[in-house]
Amino acid sequence: MSSERKTLLAARSRVHYLLDGGGNDFTSRLVHRSLVLLIFASISAVVLESVPRLAARYDALFLAIELLAIFVFTIEFALRVWSAPEHAPYAELHPWRARLEFLRTGSAIIDLLSVLPFYLSFFIPEEFRVLLVFRLLRFFKLARYSPGMRSLMAALQSERKALMASAVILFGLVLLAAAAMHMAEHDVQPERFGSIPDAMWWAIVTLTTVGYGDVVPVTTAGRVIAGITMLAGLMMLALPVGIIANAFSEEIHRREFVVTWGMVARVPLFASLSAAEIAEVMDYLRARTVPTDTIIMRRGDVADCMFFIAAGEVEIEAPHEPLKLSIGNFFGEMSLLRQTRRSATARATQPSKLLVLEADDLTALMARNPRIAQSIEAAAKARQ
Amino acid sequence: MSSERKTLLAARSRVHYLLDGGGNDFTSRLVHRSLVLLIFASISAVVLESVPRLAARYDALFLAIELLAIFVFTIEFALRVWSAPEHAPYAELHPWRARLEFLRTGSAIIDLLSVLPFYLSFFIPEEFRVLLVFRLLRFFKLARYSPGMRSLMAALQSERKALMASAVILFGLVLLAAAAMHMAEHDVQPERFGSIPDAMWWAIVTLTTVGYGDVVPVTTAGRVIAGITMLAGLMMLALPVGIIANAFSEEIHRREFVVTWGMVARVPLFASLSAAEIAEVMDYLRARTVPTDTIIMRRGDVADCMFFIAAGEVEIEAPHEPLKLSIGNFFGEMSLLRQTRRSATARATQPSKLLVLEADDLTALMARNPRIAQSIEAAAKARQ
Amino acid sequence: MSSERKTLLAARSRVHYLLDGGGNDFTSRLVHRSLVLLIFASISAVVLESVPRLAARYDALFLAIELLAIFVFTIEFALRVWSAPEHAPYAELHPWRARLEFLRTGSAIIDLLSVLPFYLSFFIPEEFRVLLVFRLLRFFKLARYSPGMRSLMAALQSERKALMASAVILFGLVLLAAAAMHMAEHDVQPERFGSIPDAMWWAIVTLTTVGYGDVVPVTTAGRVIAGITMLAGLMMLALPVGIIANAFSEEIHRREFVVTWGMVARVPLFASLSAAEIAEVMDYLRARTVPTDTIIMRRGDVADCMFFIAAGEVEIEAPHEPLKLSIGNFFGEMSLLRQTRRSATARATQPSKLLVLEADDLTALMARNPRIAQSIEAAAKARQ
Amino acid sequence: MSSERKTLLAARSRVHYLLDGGGNDFTSRLVHRSLVLLIFASISAVVLESVPRLAARYDALFLAIELLAIFVFTIEFALRVWSAPEHAPYAELHPWRARLEFLRTGSAIIDLLSVLPFYLSFFIPEEFRVLLVFRLLRFFKLARYSPGMRSLMAALQSERKALMASAVILFGLVLLAAAAMHMAEHDVQPERFGSIPDAMWWAIVTLTTVGYGDVVPVTTAGRVIAGITMLAGLMMLALPVGIIANAFSEEIHRREFVVTWGMVARVPLFASLSAAEIAEVMDYLRARTVPTDTIIMRRGDVADCMFFIAAGEVEIEAPHEPLKLSIGNFFGEMSLLRQTRRSATARATQPSKLLVLEADDLTALMARNPRIAQSIEAAAKARQ
Repeated sequence: MSSERKTLLAARSRVHYLLDGGGNDFTSRLVHRSLVLLIFASISAVVLESVPRLAARYDALFLAIELLAIFVFTIEFALRVWSAPEHAPYAELHPWRARLEFLRTGSAIIDLLSVLPFYLSFFIPEEFRVLLVFRLLRFFKLARYSPGMRSLMAALQSERKALMASAVILFGLVLLAAAAMHMAEHDVQPERFGSIPDAMWWAIVTLTTVGYGDVVPVTTAGRVIAGITMLAGLMMLALPVGIIANAFSEEIHRREFVVTWGMVARVPLFASLSAAEIAEVMDYLRARTVPTDTIIMRRGDVADCMFFIAAGEVEIEAPHEPLKLSIGNFFGEMSLLRQTRRSATARATQPSKLLVLEADDLTALMARNPRIAQSIEAAAKARQ
Repeated sequence: MSSERKTLLAARSRVHYLLDGGGNDFTSRLVHRSLVLLIFASISAVVLESVPRLAARYDALFLAIELLAIFVFTIEFALRVWSAPEHAPYAELHPWRARLEFLRTGSAIIDLLSVLPFYLSFFIPEEFRVLLVFRLLRFFKLARYSPGMRSLMAALQSERKALMASAVILFGLVLLAAAAMHMAEHDVQPERFGSIPDAMWWAIVTLTTVGYGDVVPVTTAGRVIAGITMLAGLMMLALPVGIIANAFSEEIHRREFVVTWGMVARVPLFASLSAAEIAEVMDYLRARTVPTDTIIMRRGDVADCMFFIAAGEVEIEAPHEPLKLSIGNFFGEMSLLRQTRRSATARATQPSKLLVLEADDLTALMARNPRIAQSIEAAAKARQ
Repeated sequence: MSSERKTLLAARSRVHYLLDGGGNDFTSRLVHRSLVLLIFASISAVVLESVPRLAARYDALFLAIELLAIFVFTIEFALRVWSAPEHAPYAELHPWRARLEFLRTGSAIIDLLSVLPFYLSFFIPEEFRVLLVFRLLRFFKLARYSPGMRSLMAALQSERKALMASAVILFGLVLLAAAAMHMAEHDVQPERFGSIPDAMWWAIVTLTTVGYGDVVPVTTAGRVIAGITMLAGLMMLALPVGIIANAFSEEIHRREFVVTWGMVARVPLFASLSAAEIAEVMDYLRARTVPTDTIIMRRGDVADCMFFIAAGEVEIEAPHEPLKLSIGNFFGEMSLLRQTRRSATARATQPSKLLVLEADDLTALMARNPRIAQSIEAAAKARQ
Repeated sequence: MSSERKTLLAARSRVHYLLDGGGNDFTSRLVHRSLVLLIFASISAVVLESVPRLAARYDALFLAIELLAIFVFTIEFALRVWSAPEHAPYAELHPWRARLEFLRTGSAIIDLLSVLPFYLSFFIPEEFRVLLVFRLLRFFKLARYSPGMRSLMAALQSERKALMASAVILFGLVLLAAAAMHMAEHDVQPERFGSIPDAMWWAIVTLTTVGYGDVVPVTTAGRVIAGITMLAGLMMLALPVGIIANAFSEEIHRREFVVTWGMVARVPLFASLSAAEIAEVMDYLRARTVPTDTIIMRRGDVADCMFFIAAGEVEIEAPHEPLKLSIGNFFGEMSLLRQTRRSATARATQPSKLLVLEADDLTALMARNPRIAQSIEAAAKARQ
């Protein structure tokens, strides 16, 4: 590998780390916070611009914000494409293949849709207003910075087929309800139920239990049909809820596994314990499975537990060089003992199984087992 | 068996396969897509025909579509009845018995209701409009072509008793709420709460949380009763959701089983692995139980995993003759290795237990175990 | 025990059986259906009587139905009290103690409230109309005849504390939302948000997502408060759903147990099978736990499965004398083999564990294991 | 420790016990009930004071109640802070540290917000009315006295991140729906959809399925957008429900563990049973895990089960001195045998695993095993 290519690689890696790497150093945080701020500013500008009074008054400001946003988001998007990581989960990819892969992800599409309308508006100026919606898609760029939002969207994404199917069933019910209501009420309220498409408005409003009340049946037959439609609506409500509740439950259970005797006994720290003591420790430990590249703890977070590795491998970001830990090792105990925030970030480098010990339980365990207390304190000291 | 009867049997089997067999050849796909297209066309015609302006203008077109739909759906229904498969899950049935069985299924009833109104309309012309609804039932013919829609409807179907019971409880609450509101408001709003049947309209609109707002209590007593009714409505909402969420969860768990050591060890491919390696492989594998006649993978689908048979038997549709695979065999690896779409369809011919290995995990496994990599590649080559 | 007392006991037992015993003979069915019919008739009368036009016209008919209902329900209630079973789950009770126990059950209270208003109306004639509601409580007498309705009401009952707590939290939110809205809107809409009690009507309508729209905020501050209130309403919706979904799930799991090798091997019918065959049979069997006095199958029902007893005891109602079956025995196979309806009722006389084999799986099992087929057919013949 | 300090400590401990200790003696109950009563009285006063007619008439009464409430709640808050328990779960804290810890809990913040507005109102008299809301926060002081309410709020609390994330997603959808609707309808209904902020009111009302109906689309494009928005609303409804349903399910399963043979065999009472009898007993027992300081049964409660200790330690409040019970012991049998209310309170002094035996099952067990019956009766007698 030429030295020039090496420098290039290092630069790409550095840019990727800054934009996407979950880094916690000053520059990363500055970049992330600036981007989040700009997202909020540009969304607010789009929203407020729509108010005629404000649009007239702050015209220049809104344009400035939009131009800045377009400028920054375009560069951000270009850099993200350029620095797309070459290493897929298990193999190395050609740079252009990696970029193509990145362009197919949902977040890349949102990045693109955040800026594209601006450029397209030069060519189709008449339809500029329609493209306004896509500028608000910038909001979902925030998902990149919120793990909660990301995992909820992943749950919706993973069940998109079932959710789509329930939308199709709902559409079938809308058709039937609209047709029935059209027959019952088209003579009495011809302007509201005069045709099936008209009646469909009533049907969707009723089946989703929104119930505006702008269109309401007045005949007895119509009210009976409406009652049955509302009941069907309750069932329709249950379909997506059932689907998503199960997606969550599946997700959660996939992350769990049974803590076995063997796992605990393999941790050197616990090796000297009697069988009864191991049984006691087992009660305290909670299982957690993490896929490769999961951030297990992040520098600066509040510390509420420590971790033992039951399987896999974990890398601790140390000042000089990363520290690799594997089966039987533990980490995260330092900040617990000193009641400080996390001083390092830990990342799984393989799919790993962790045993989690809460802060309170650690205190209890150390109080009861002086030997364990000594070992943990010694290890914490050695790592400083 | 006479040669004539054999030809007949073959014809029936061919027709059944075309209409219902999940085949992926050109003719099957053409038949399916034409039918789906006709369903949409005829539904659209029915909906648009109800708009007076359009009905006047495109009269002939709507009639033509309806006549075509009736013609095709009648033939389709006749052919489906004629070709009803003689082999029930485990035994052979007399052709007429098989047809009777088919006529009792939900999809046959929908097929019949899609065409029957047309023929009946000749005898009872006055009530033609009432039968219009049933033409829209054609929409649910689509369920045959959408596995998601089918499985959601199966969930609703399997819990129909519990859902019915919650509808009955809801009806009881409607009665009580209506009676209470009738007492509280019949003096103030006699035209709205003058009788219990009148008040029932308010009660159902409130208990289902639709809340049109066309009928609203105005007295303090009425508002207190309404508040309690709304609370009861929240509980009623919870009943169907709880029922269906559990039906899904049941369904999902019934499909799962625990991957045991023995299952993995019985797969010849893994026989040479050490105990530690088997334990590692076990982590990657996901369990899936399939009933007889399930399509496990379908030609042309995107390939994202391969399968090992832990129990049962699977048939691979091969160009010349079907390939039967049983315990210990694996399949679906070819399209993974070459990153192509599925080149064959696999169907369970017995209730089977499969071990599923995701694409990423296969790559990881092959990278770590050259012997496994060789065996899989050799098998894939041999099957070409 | 004197012979007179014996006759009395037999009479009580006979009456209890007729009213509540789930019997399937002609008299029991006649009694049940007449009572259900009368419940519907008297409810319909109460509802229709409230329509002034109908009340004037069918005055005499409604009175006649009410008098008949009061007469029959009073006798029914008296007989139920008189015949309250002396044997509690595990011990024998004094007759009066048994009656007291019965009077404390929910269904006895509903029975009483169905007739009491009539008798009380003689003493407090002025308030007759208020008592009208309680007559509609008769509707819930139906729960006795519908297992689905009963089990749903049991789920609501078992979670009544948690549901109550969520109602209390909802009330707290109603207070806060109403106070906030009162502050924001009382100047603009004094007649709607002029006081907190007034604003509470808006708050409950919004938090339950009913949303009539009769009271709506118009200021910006009011709309922001309303938006937050709606969000809180979504969370409030989730509480009862989460509670009830879990109650169902708990209930379902309590009824399940794991089918073990030992259970199957203890059934004499399967004793001759090889280990591999037992494993195969295990796949087919589904577990079901039933408490004492559960009706497992009922004469006249459609037959879709047969049962093996893994623990407990089951009594089959036979023409001459009941047949007691215990561990290892099976039943329900006759109607499967001949594809007829159930010819006898089976009741658990102890808490029992059953292994259930579906009709299709029985056919498959018998096709593969001629020995099992012979044994089952022989047993079915012997029981005729 | 000086005798003075000892007295002080005892006083603090006594005060803490009175206010928060879950004690069941006369003084504790009097204190609790008085506080609950005062909460209700002061809330009612705040609510009714907002009605102008009542405010004018009962001015003095409302002021008196408010002053009393402020006086009592201030003292209560001061005493709670003063008596904050020094022993954290596993270690002893300095008194001031303990008080600081207490001040950071949610209930302390609610206590403070219940009285603070009153004192602040002297300094910012103009904004007195805004602070009115916080007085209603007193309602949530009730959570301290209702375990159901507390555990529901804990469930909401533990999922606050996921719920927050779903609120953020909802906000993103509100933005998109509002922008789309603004484009579709701003020409037709400029006063309602004239700007995105205006349209956001419609969007939140629709996405939460509240549907007031004060703002409703009238164009076809608007209605199509509204239909899609309603569908999205159904999905949004599913997110919090799925999250909370799983939080409950998690909570419930964490409390469960599998009853093993060993646990039962270790209870001396069951030591003499045969293997088959132990298996039978296992069926009756239900598992329950309790953290330290849980009240397992409370004096005066209705008795419906007895307990066996499988792990941990339980303290029974006895008249003279507390009784410590550990593995293998049982308790709660006395009130079952005599069908009286609980005569003592039991508290876990360690995280404990209990085996629970319902009243009915105890009767059954004693009926079948005279030896167990004798042992239980003997133990109950010995404890009197």
